[in-house]
Amino acid sequence: MRKLIRRASRKAGLAPGTLVHVGERKAEKPRITIIDYDAENFQEREADSVKQCHASRHTSTVTWINVSGLHDVSLIEELGECFGIHSLVLEDILNTSQRPKLEEYEDHMFIVLRMLYQHSEDGEVEAEQLALVVGDNFVLSFQERAQDVFEGVRGRLRTSRRRIRERGADYLAYALLDAVVDAYFLVLESLGEMIESLEDDLLHDPSVATLNAVHGLKRELIFLRRSVWPLREVISLLARGERGAFSDETLIYLRDVYDHTIQVIDTIESYRDLVAGMHDTYLSSLSNRMNEVMKVLTIFASIFIPLTFIAGIYGMNFQYMPELHWRWAYPGVWAAMLVLTLFMLSYFRRKKWL
Amino acid sequence: MRKLIRRASRKAGLAPGTLVHVGERKAEKPRITIIDYDAENFQEREADSVKQCHASRHTSTVTWINVSGLHDVSLIEELGECFGIHSLVLEDILNTSQRPKLEEYEDHMFIVLRMLYQHSEDGEVEAEQLALVVGDNFVLSFQERAQDVFEGVRGRLRTSRRRIRERGADYLAYALLDAVVDAYFLVLESLGEMIESLEDDLLHDPSVATLNAVHGLKRELIFLRRSVWPLREVISLLARGERGAFSDETLIYLRDVYDHTIQVIDTIESYRDLVAGMHDTYLSSLSNRMNEVMKVLTIFASIFIPLTFIAGIYGMNFQYMPELHWRWAYPGVWAAMLVLTLFMLSYFRRKKWL
Amino acid sequence: MRKLIRRASRKAGLAPGTLVHVGERKAEKPRITIIDYDAENFQEREADSVKQCHASRHTSTVTWINVSGLHDVSLIEELGECFGIHSLVLEDILNTSQRPKLEEYEDHMFIVLRMLYQHSEDGEVEAEQLALVVGDNFVLSFQERAQDVFEGVRGRLRTSRRRIRERGADYLAYALLDAVVDAYFLVLESLGEMIESLEDDLLHDPSVATLNAVHGLKRELIFLRRSVWPLREVISLLARGERGAFSDETLIYLRDVYDHTIQVIDTIESYRDLVAGMHDTYLSSLSNRMNEVMKVLTIFASIFIPLTFIAGIYGMNFQYMPELHWRWAYPGVWAAMLVLTLFMLSYFRRKKWL
Amino acid sequence: MRKLIRRASRKAGLAPGTLVHVGERKAEKPRITIIDYDAENFQEREADSVKQCHASRHTSTVTWINVSGLHDVSLIEELGECFGIHSLVLEDILNTSQRPKLEEYEDHMFIVLRMLYQHSEDGEVEAEQLALVVGDNFVLSFQERAQDVFEGVRGRLRTSRRRIRERGADYLAYALLDAVVDAYFLVLESLGEMIESLEDDLLHDPSVATLNAVHGLKRELIFLRRSVWPLREVISLLARGERGAFSDETLIYLRDVYDHTIQVIDTIESYRDLVAGMHDTYLSSLSNRMNEVMKVLTIFASIFIPLTFIAGIYGMNFQYMPELHWRWAYPGVWAAMLVLTLFMLSYFRRKKWL
Amino acid sequence: MRKLIRRASRKAGLAPGTLVHVGERKAEKPRITIIDYDAENFQEREADSVKQCHASRHTSTVTWINVSGLHDVSLIEELGECFGIHSLVLEDILNTSQRPKLEEYEDHMFIVLRMLYQHSEDGEVEAEQLALVVGDNFVLSFQERAQDVFEGVRGRLRTSRRRIRERGADYLAYALLDAVVDAYFLVLESLGEMIESLEDDLLHDPSVATLNAVHGLKRELIFLRRSVWPLREVISLLARGERGAFSDETLIYLRDVYDHTIQVIDTIESYRDLVAGMHDTYLSSLSNRMNEVMKVLTIFASIFIPLTFIAGIYGMNFQYMPELHWRWAYPGVWAAMLVLTLFMLSYFRRKKWL
Repeated sequence: MRKLIRRASRKAGLAPGTLVHVGERKAEKPRITIIDYDAENFQEREADSVKQCHASRHTSTVTWINVSGLHDVSLIEELGECFGIHSLVLEDILNTSQRPKLEEYEDHMFIVLRMLYQHSEDGEVEAEQLALVVGDNFVLSFQERAQDVFEGVRGRLRTSRRRIRERGADYLAYALLDAVVDAYFLVLESLGEMIESLEDDLLHDPSVATLNAVHGLKRELIFLRRSVWPLREVISLLARGERGAFSDETLIYLRDVYDHTIQVIDTIESYRDLVAGMHDTYLSSLSNRMNEVMKVLTIFASIFIPLTFIAGIYGMNFQYMPELHWRWAYPGVWAAMLVLTLFMLSYFRRKKWL
Repeated sequence: MRKLIRRASRKAGLAPGTLVHVGERKAEKPRITIIDYDAENFQEREADSVKQCHASRHTSTVTWINVSGLHDVSLIEELGECFGIHSLVLEDILNTSQRPKLEEYEDHMFIVLRMLYQHSEDGEVEAEQLALVVGDNFVLSFQERAQDVFEGVRGRLRTSRRRIRERGADYLAYALLDAVVDAYFLVLESLGEMIESLEDDLLHDPSVATLNAVHGLKRELIFLRRSVWPLREVISLLARGERGAFSDETLIYLRDVYDHTIQVIDTIESYRDLVAGMHDTYLSSLSNRMNEVMKVLTIFASIFIPLTFIAGIYGMNFQYMPELHWRWAYPGVWAAMLVLTLFMLSYFRRKKWL
Repeated sequence: MRKLIRRASRKAGLAPGTLVHVGERKAEKPRITIIDYDAENFQEREADSVKQCHASRHTSTVTWINVSGLHDVSLIEELGECFGIHSLVLEDILNTSQRPKLEEYEDHMFIVLRMLYQHSEDGEVEAEQLALVVGDNFVLSFQERAQDVFEGVRGRLRTSRRRIRERGADYLAYALLDAVVDAYFLVLESLGEMIESLEDDLLHDPSVATLNAVHGLKRELIFLRRSVWPLREVISLLARGERGAFSDETLIYLRDVYDHTIQVIDTIESYRDLVAGMHDTYLSSLSNRMNEVMKVLTIFASIFIPLTFIAGIYGMNFQYMPELHWRWAYPGVWAAMLVLTLFMLSYFRRKKWL
Repeated sequence: MRKLIRRASRKAGLAPGTLVHVGERKAEKPRITIIDYDAENFQEREADSVKQCHASRHTSTVTWINVSGLHDVSLIEELGECFGIHSLVLEDILNTSQRPKLEEYEDHMFIVLRMLYQHSEDGEVEAEQLALVVGDNFVLSFQERAQDVFEGVRGRLRTSRRRIRERGADYLAYALLDAVVDAYFLVLESLGEMIESLEDDLLHDPSVATLNAVHGLKRELIFLRRSVWPLREVISLLARGERGAFSDETLIYLRDVYDHTIQVIDTIESYRDLVAGMHDTYLSSLSNRMNEVMKVLTIFASIFIPLTFIAGIYGMNFQYMPELHWRWAYPGVWAAMLVLTLFMLSYFRRKKWL
Repeated sequence: MRKLIRRASRKAGLAPGTLVHVGERKAEKPRITIIDYDAENFQEREADSVKQCHASRHTSTVTWINVSGLHDVSLIEELGECFGIHSLVLEDILNTSQRPKLEEYEDHMFIVLRMLYQHSEDGEVEAEQLALVVGDNFVLSFQERAQDVFEGVRGRLRTSRRRIRERGADYLAYALLDAVVDAYFLVLESLGEMIESLEDDLLHDPSVATLNAVHGLKRELIFLRRSVWPLREVISLLARGERGAFSDETLIYLRDVYDHTIQVIDTIESYRDLVAGMHDTYLSSLSNRMNEVMKVLTIFASIFIPLTFIAGIYGMNFQYMPELHWRWAYPGVWAAMLVLTLFMLSYFRRKKWL
């Protein structure tokens, strides 16, 4: 079950710009991957320390530095210094429970997103914060875990003669955003399947487990919604192109990402509509069942209580009860009981209870 | 049951602009129909390949090329090259789960819609994506299936002396939009009838099947809504006439289409209001029935349990029970029971349970 | 029960501007009433054909032509030609399921409203479309039935020395709008009374009929709302006075109508709030009743089942049951039963079930 | 119970500007109170007729004329003439079911409010329309009843050396608005207490009377909301200071009133949220009770029905029933019954029904 | 339980600007703390009277005067005079039930907030109003109680060489706002935990206490929401930087606070969504339980009522009942009863009631 809010207690009372990692430690050791490319050249390497980052700062190639694992605060600090990043941005990078947002500084842009992906092993959906710093010829990306949704982008970068190699850091940033949004669709797909199977369960075999599942789904959708709505704002701001950081050609692609984000939101809202109705369906199913139980009780009681009464009558010990001595009284009583039962059954059939 | 989201897995991780057909293969072979007309001339033919399209590109007549069946990616690519269409547009044409939208390029406009129509055979409502590319003197339309809602437009084109023959590609585009929106009304009509019959069922004979139907209706309305709201935006953008592509005269007609779209939305929202209340009605009906069942049980139990008790009393075997030896005890007990029953019946009648 | 959407099948597939009457035929024969007036003169006559209309087109007096009954398409066409009305406007006049709207053309304004009034005979509320074409010195009004809400306006026109006679066609249009909006209040009043009586029923004597009535009310309000919200837009557009058609002085009056429309909307929304809560009240009442039924059953069962058990005990045929032979056993059992009953009654009284 | 709409039938069909009093006659005779003041002088008198009003029109002092009782239409008309008030304004003054609004005329401003106050005797909340006409050096106020919320303002006016005496008519108008809004808080307070006591009742002792009270509260809040939302607009318009009628210094005070209005709205919305949840709580309480009733029934039935069955067994008259002749059979049956009962009790205790 | 509105009766009818303390008296004696600092110097002292405040008014250092306890009206008045504060501002400072707001005066800014913190002793959440007056080189803060959320800020001030010491009063004001918003997160965290534990209770062990807790939570969230939404407006206004009072560098920090406020709102809205669904879950759980109770009753009744009937049959005293004299009749009846019971049990098992 997703936590709706992370423990922020560690931070309360500190000065702004104080660098503290808020989040769980997900990786053993921060991993720094540096990809350096232009149309002709491509270089990919793992860096041991930030020293090597300095080198790539002032080349004409595009540099993408990805940091997985944020608990080593000093490393982030050094990187920040090297690329001239505001201390509040560094603070936000380390606080991994940010709301998606876009901030513009003089020579770089800071984007916070929430990245969703399915775990390669058990297929469970994981969410983590992705922080992007986009400069003239560099993109820095910060995440907590080693796994991400960028394998496709890396693949395209490795192959020469792909459009992505001929373009600048803005196109790379777009490609990363696109990969993040594309991954939402996969999550939505699996939620869609869950909704369909739950709807089936609700109508035909509702149980407390179903109610639990509906609840979990609601929660997941609330969580998703909180990730996507601000993402839409971020991408809308970027796609409007008022910030100079993106070239006109890349803007066309960004508008495509924007369309996808809208589609994600549309789908989430539709899902919410569907899930909102599920509780009502559950209650209806419960009521239906209760009705069924009550009918069984009522039918049994209404048939046998009068019969028992009749039997009780002739169990009385009055001295003067002429029927007791009649020859055919006993079979007569049986006959009367049979007639009564048949009458009751036909009555319930007419009421459509049977 | 409509899927709320299509499998997009095939696309995730690909570069933008990569042409992949997302959707089901609905037709055997793509069918290309070319209609070429001006006020005097009219020519309609099926093309075997895209070669023939090239010819019609640079004539002064209006050319409408309709492609049914999108799985032949190379064909779409050739068409795109011939008419100079951006690769992102081609990607969108092939991805048939787009949200309705309007995109403007230098020399053409790209419109995505959702087209609804009733299947000619079994009357079921089908939905598919319609992509329109509107240029100076050509309209390209892309759909997955052969069936569409444009027979009326084709008919008017075939007849000379109709206004549509004297106007340009913009009027043709308007006519197609109008046909699409008109078809929504037919779908709404059949939904309206379904709602009315369901309301009847809910008040008089609610069952699990009714609940299922309400559910399906809700789903259908969510789906419709997702198709129409963005359509409204698209047509509103067009009707405002800021884009030069539509002549002033055609704009008057577009505003008419806009009014219709608003009316469609109004109706959908009203339907949603009605359907939203249906679940409550269902629950009320269930409660009403339960009340009825309980009353039957209570009446039977309340009448016969005391009677059985009386019978039980005189079934006791005490040695000293004077009543047992009275001459009129037995008829007396019957009389007492009768009085008691009448009293109970009148009590329930006063409570209006009978 | 109001239809939420009219059959539009007759129109689908036709060219725009094709004149077809969509709606029920409500009047035997179209009735054309021409009122011609200025401050000094007043003339009111029924016209046989449209010929006579031509005459009034170019006088300096204000001409009000009212057409009741729209099934004679040719008549509408002639009128349209005489007053130079766009074919799309004529189409809208004939399609009587339009959404209220305002359209401006070069020399006239086209307004569509929904007019409500209580039938003079049985008091039932009728709704029909009113189309107004307002020109420099003429007002054309189109409706389906002979009855309308304009008797007051006609009366004021007939009396000389009333302000309305001294003003132009714009003031006449205002007066008609005012009459339409005023009539909404009467409908709201009767709905308000219905709501109050239903609330009473719901709390004290809920039945399936009440539920039906609540349902009908909801439907009626959805219908009303759909009529009034766009009406508000229309009148707001007019009252803002950006269109030159209304003189400054008339605009003050229009703002008054606008205030009334807002008040109508306010009231409808309040009603909706009230009606929305009615279902909950109904369910609560049902639950309350069920509780009452269950209490009766429980009290009867809980008192008599133990008593019957006691009677059963002494109905057993064991050879060695000393009590059976005691002298005061039988009265003792009665006494015990009485005590038990009193105890149970006091228990239920303490629980406040009695 | 507040009427949601007043009978407007008296007005329908009349010409605009026709003066008719719509509302109940609340006072015997209209009472006209004239207060005339500047920093040095203060004069307060009751006028017999409007004649005396004429005098105060052209003095340099500030004049506040308050009219309580609106059924004397001619009086209102004379006042209107004297101060040059538009006939539509007079009509609105007399129609006491107006929506709060602000209208600006060349030399005066017209404000309609809804004034709430607690009746001095029985503490019931009364609502009535207050109409203000604010001119250069005069304020006219119109209300239906003699009682109002202005005693504080009058008191401050009577005392010399108070700020209010040194300022103009705009400050007086502000003071009246402030008094009206302040009175809302008192009403909100008493509603808040009602809500708290109802919440208590709902959780611990729900009855039909509680449901009735919740209903009444809902209605009252709908009514209040309809009064306050437009009031907010009115005061916002005034406080923005675009209309020249208020001096800059008074605007600061008006913004204070605006803050209060926002606070009133905030509180009403919070109340609505709370009351909206009350119905659910009521239903839950009912369900809880039903559960309790059912448990009592089930426990009684489940314990005694098997016991009665056992008794019934040994009440059978078979010739060959060996148990009947055993010495300890009877006490044995009692023992068995006791064991069974204890078992059932422990079962129900484990289920937490006891 | 938080009061939703404070008693305002004390104020109604008073002139605006009249200083009256509205609120509970929370502290024994107002405590005035004066902190005076620049980059080099730092002085912190408690003042006995306002006299000492005068001194700090015209120094070049930044002065922060904090007043805890507002019941000494004359003290507030003197401070107001010393720093030239508008009487309406003083009124608002004393009325501790203000809505968060921002007001600008010529040489100072007035900010009202709601400050939340957890009581150091029992962990309960307390709320009180914080009023800030921010001038060129001074910040005045007014609160009712001695406890607050500013210990961190004070700590940083005391330490030389911290950024806060080098900046002006605007940065101090920012630091206070930041501390207030940070404290909201702690409250949200504890609410989040409450929600999670309640969800657990609702699904597994719902009781009236749970319902009470849900209710309290709802109320708390309504209260929080009313505090935070206007806070967002206030900080948004400040962060937009149109008011000159904040330096460009501080504005970057303010935008950070703004982001936090948005995050608080997001979380509150998510909580509201979750809590809104809790009532439904409660009802479902109740229905589930009722179903269980009914099943127990129905199973008992359906099994034993027929058996009792059979026993009743052979308890009848007819003279001619051949079965009574059969040798194996009694064991036969037992066998029949056993078969019947097994049949009923398997029937209920098939229905999944067992």
